[in-house]
Amino acid sequence: MKLLRRGEPGYETPLVEIDGTLYDASPIGDFAPSFWATGGVQQLKKLAEKGRLTPVKIDDNVRYGSPVANASAVICIGQNYAAHAAESGAEPPQSPIVFLKTPNTIAGPNDIVTIARGSQKTDWEVELGIIIGSTASYCDSLEEAAQHIGGYVLANDLSERTFQLEISGGQWSKGKCSPGYMPLGPWIVTADEFDPADARLRSWVNGEPRQDSRTADMIFSCAEIVRDLSQYMQLEPGDVISTGTPQGVAVSGRFPYLKSGDVVEVEIEGLGRQRQTYRAWEA
Amino acid sequence: MKLLRRGEPGYETPLVEIDGTLYDASPIGDFAPSFWATGGVQQLKKLAEKGRLTPVKIDDNVRYGSPVANASAVICIGQNYAAHAAESGAEPPQSPIVFLKTPNTIAGPNDIVTIARGSQKTDWEVELGIIIGSTASYCDSLEEAAQHIGGYVLANDLSERTFQLEISGGQWSKGKCSPGYMPLGPWIVTADEFDPADARLRSWVNGEPRQDSRTADMIFSCAEIVRDLSQYMQLEPGDVISTGTPQGVAVSGRFPYLKSGDVVEVEIEGLGRQRQTYRAWEA
Repeated sequence: MKLLRRGEPGYETPLVEIDGTLYDASPIGDFAPSFWATGGVQQLKKLAEKGRLTPVKIDDNVRYGSPVANASAVICIGQNYAAHAAESGAEPPQSPIVFLKTPNTIAGPNDIVTIARGSQKTDWEVELGIIIGSTASYCDSLEEAAQHIGGYVLANDLSERTFQLEISGGQWSKGKCSPGYMPLGPWIVTADEFDPADARLRSWVNGEPRQDSRTADMIFSCAEIVRDLSQYMQLEPGDVISTGTPQGVAVSGRFPYLKSGDVVEVEIEGLGRQRQTYRAWEA
Repeated sequence: MKLLRRGEPGYETPLVEIDGTLYDASPIGDFAPSFWATGGVQQLKKLAEKGRLTPVKIDDNVRYGSPVANASAVICIGQNYAAHAAESGAEPPQSPIVFLKTPNTIAGPNDIVTIARGSQKTDWEVELGIIIGSTASYCDSLEEAAQHIGGYVLANDLSERTFQLEISGGQWSKGKCSPGYMPLGPWIVTADEFDPADARLRSWVNGEPRQDSRTADMIFSCAEIVRDLSQYMQLEPGDVISTGTPQGVAVSGRFPYLKSGDVVEVEIEGLGRQRQTYRAWEA
């Protein structure tokens, strides 16, 4: 089952794709925390089995919104691919490194990205995102943790490296929260239909390849991340956890940072592709 | 004008205190982001002038909830008092150090605090909190930034130092997000009635003094913090910014960390006092 939201910003319709057919999901409600907290996926499945969902057609040119609405937290894992930790000049971490983005960074997968005012070092990061399906606190096993995963989503954890690393006092969030710096989507794939163990993830800038890795190279698996985080915070339904990015970003020194007019594409096998045009900030 | 919320968790009534009289504020709505976004303070003032607010009496023993409901972000400033930076072993920062707490850390000012499972180093931090009154992005002056401040609140930025410093890879949020680790209140004082320039802030553990400083010792003022943050993120109505803590916390090595049965009090002149009993986590 794929969950997606389409329409103009703030006016998206929630949709569900089952066996290649698109249905209106709005009778169950938007893909906000309450959707997950009230078993929205199971409700959609039951309605589908009974033939009670309404098939819909949507024009190709209708915008994709973020498939996540009103997340209470956007939690990120740093340096979770050994080769990326190395290109950033760091040792592989002993336990997951956690930082947060403000939820108002979330944007549609193909929305134009306005480069932050004053930014010289805006960088891409293709990442596998976890959607929390139910409240998780103090999970004692990987099995328990995995049961709290509701789905998966493609994310681009956009980062401003001057803000993040040079004027931050070492705390990364300053370079992670510019408006629109967390494109999500095009859709959520529910946990029963996506295996996060070994998916290929890639990025391109102006059609040239940048990142090309597999989630098998993650230091900490999705279930391990949820288990670990749940020791330090309560994970809420609809929260997003972005699980880190592989090597091939600009901060490595191998590629230029993003500038006005650039086009970034990111893709994860099974989770679709994003395409963003970048433009300079204007008053 | 003081804004406060009283009642059992999840069932608080929003109240406003004007010239010593308490009124029901629920006709305007709860103190959530929409309250600030729609000019709730001005609406309450107009209703009060017209004599349209309903005076209420509340028993002393009714719980105080957090006066902030449904914040989209809880933003914290680190090492913003020179003497605290020194006791933490750090140089004073060149620009504000930013990290985030998840909004589900927010608790009532006098709620029992459950010490995080496995915690050996839970620490107190009395802080002056800013409530953002209107959307702030790319503020160009201190004057512009100050106009986005809706009010002020007392905060206890509870921290788990092992999680924050020893198993975090250097990113502090891991030790800042345990459930209930952000008591707020007892009330918000609106920006027109509180001067953040030189307020005394103090903390006690089991009645013994710990922190005792003044906001005049802040390295970055409230307006400067809002101006600076607005360069890196969009501040939303109802967001909380906790502006850092002065010297006198346990991580200095001068005091023991918190244990079950301890009582912490924090106070800021004009913003009231909190009193929390701590207890060990139980399955």
